[in-house]
Amino acid sequence: MDNLEKILSDIKGADENSKAKAKERLDNLAKPLGSLGHLESIAIKISGITGKLDNPMKNRHLIIMSSDNGIVEEGVSCCPQNITLIQTINMLRGITGVGVLAKHAGAKLKVVDIGINADVEYPGLYNKKIRKGTWNISKGPAMTREEAIKSIMIGIEMVEESVREGAEVLGTGEMGIGNTSTSSAVLIAFTGADADMVVGKGAGLTEEAYENKKRVIKQALEINNPDKNDPIDVLAKVGGFDIGGMAGCFIGAAYYRIPILIDGLISAAAALLAYRLNPLVVDYMFPTHCSAEPGYKRIMEELKLQPMLNLDMRLGEGSGCAVAYDILDAANDVITKMATFEEATIVNDFLVDIR
Amino acid sequence: MDNLEKILSDIKGADENSKAKAKERLDNLAKPLGSLGHLESIAIKISGITGKLDNPMKNRHLIIMSSDNGIVEEGVSCCPQNITLIQTINMLRGITGVGVLAKHAGAKLKVVDIGINADVEYPGLYNKKIRKGTWNISKGPAMTREEAIKSIMIGIEMVEESVREGAEVLGTGEMGIGNTSTSSAVLIAFTGADADMVVGKGAGLTEEAYENKKRVIKQALEINNPDKNDPIDVLAKVGGFDIGGMAGCFIGAAYYRIPILIDGLISAAAALLAYRLNPLVVDYMFPTHCSAEPGYKRIMEELKLQPMLNLDMRLGEGSGCAVAYDILDAANDVITKMATFEEATIVNDFLVDIR
Repeated sequence: MDNLEKILSDIKGADENSKAKAKERLDNLAKPLGSLGHLESIAIKISGITGKLDNPMKNRHLIIMSSDNGIVEEGVSCCPQNITLIQTINMLRGITGVGVLAKHAGAKLKVVDIGINADVEYPGLYNKKIRKGTWNISKGPAMTREEAIKSIMIGIEMVEESVREGAEVLGTGEMGIGNTSTSSAVLIAFTGADADMVVGKGAGLTEEAYENKKRVIKQALEINNPDKNDPIDVLAKVGGFDIGGMAGCFIGAAYYRIPILIDGLISAAAALLAYRLNPLVVDYMFPTHCSAEPGYKRIMEELKLQPMLNLDMRLGEGSGCAVAYDILDAANDVITKMATFEEATIVNDFLVDIR
Repeated sequence: MDNLEKILSDIKGADENSKAKAKERLDNLAKPLGSLGHLESIAIKISGITGKLDNPMKNRHLIIMSSDNGIVEEGVSCCPQNITLIQTINMLRGITGVGVLAKHAGAKLKVVDIGINADVEYPGLYNKKIRKGTWNISKGPAMTREEAIKSIMIGIEMVEESVREGAEVLGTGEMGIGNTSTSSAVLIAFTGADADMVVGKGAGLTEEAYENKKRVIKQALEINNPDKNDPIDVLAKVGGFDIGGMAGCFIGAAYYRIPILIDGLISAAAALLAYRLNPLVVDYMFPTHCSAEPGYKRIMEELKLQPMLNLDMRLGEGSGCAVAYDILDAANDVITKMATFEEATIVNDFLVDIR
């Protein structure tokens, strides 16, 4: 595989010609112009990715990046660190939120150990461990620059494998106690957003623990002073292996031209990182649900994207992606199976009126 | 079948005991408390309807009420009236928006002629025609009081048949040129909302035609002066057969205790009408998508309900319901298939911490 720089420079944006053809077909369907809203814009966007009008979204892969974060030492999470390991195994057992929802959606779950703080082997678990968790970002960088690049390359490799296996659409998910803190730090590093506005309570912090979480994140940014114009620096200083791996998934999806779903806050932070490495990747991204985490909306504003689902979810794991696959497939049915005005035998003289 | 008054008085609210059991199970699942948001509240609500914890939502019916509206004489729609007939037939041909999306969802489409302005027979079309369209509400009432009750009873009968056929969840849809005008009139009659705030551009009006639409709706309300405390009077004076039929579906769903989906503005206006006849029906209703029509949000505020999808759709037909069935089924998978903390073998000493 080429190196990251070459991959990033080889990414191309959407096929505008194909998007125009998709829009033309949608505008000719027997319905008021634009009345299927985002089902139409989704179908157009997918066409821009694949260059085709008919894009079934049945072969669904969901790539999960699991890793630990040194920052948990600071009490930023209400969960102990070994939940990362336990829930990673439970995903593969199909009994966590995303385990159940991925099965519901018929999606193939690919769970990657990119940095769990334990020696672990489990049937189906991809062993791509960089290290047993990052360092504590409130005291220094999370990882080296080389490790940051490696985490991204792992994501790209995972996408390459899925594409080879015939995936038609990808989803992203994660498991990593402490990763709403690292995601918030990445978001603040890139945007300068106010911690009080974008840091959330994660899995359910008390008010006191929440104040501590914000303090620790601010400290991490102060000590590390990441360079917002150097996304690899941001990842290395205040990110996590999971965020790097997911950013790699977004970059890989753009490189291999396949639609990819954004899940909640952590996935969105990874999308933002990928976007800062090459803004064209946004042409491949589909946000799924509006996370209850406050930082999420800020990232959507940056990416100028709008999520499809309004379910107040904040589980992470990729659970929102699992619910959204079907909407992309429905959008494809709209563009391929609805009748045009002509097919609907609506005669010419009220063609003008109905639009 | 009993008369409407008896049916309305026999409706009971949710089974609170069953809801409490569902909540208890969800709170014991291996995830942060409440982190699956509306997937959890949907599962709880369904349990309150059926009295069971396991409620597969696979057998899906979608009931469509098609009828014409006399108000189209006033130029309130950009579509000619015979689109009602043409698109009703095209639904049965499976080539309209809802035809395609219902097939995608595996939902059985039941299309009812409750008042199309034409003599029509078509394989699969239910002939329940009350009359060939309502009268022009800008000049007098839409229908008689007897016709209003009849339209509601037709909806209840359709639900009775679906329940007998084993439906596990119902959806509602409509086709009727001019019915965003009647729906807005019903909404304003009940709530006193400002026409400028709640009337929308329907299938796509020019600015001039939009001003005319608002003027005509205001005139209809002035001339008819419907009694907001008498929902049948509101339906008879400024409603439509489709709205009455759909309101009957909501009442029937509550009577036969089956979950029912709200689609867009017209479906929501019918839900509001049913709610004013008996507020308990709201325990059976699930709004699907946030319609782009402005009156929709006003009705959700009245019903205190929140839609699941954020797709800017404004096609009607029941298209939003078709996309949402799968979310209810996903919610059922969450409550039945996710592991509890115990099953997840998360040991007792961090049970407290993870919540």
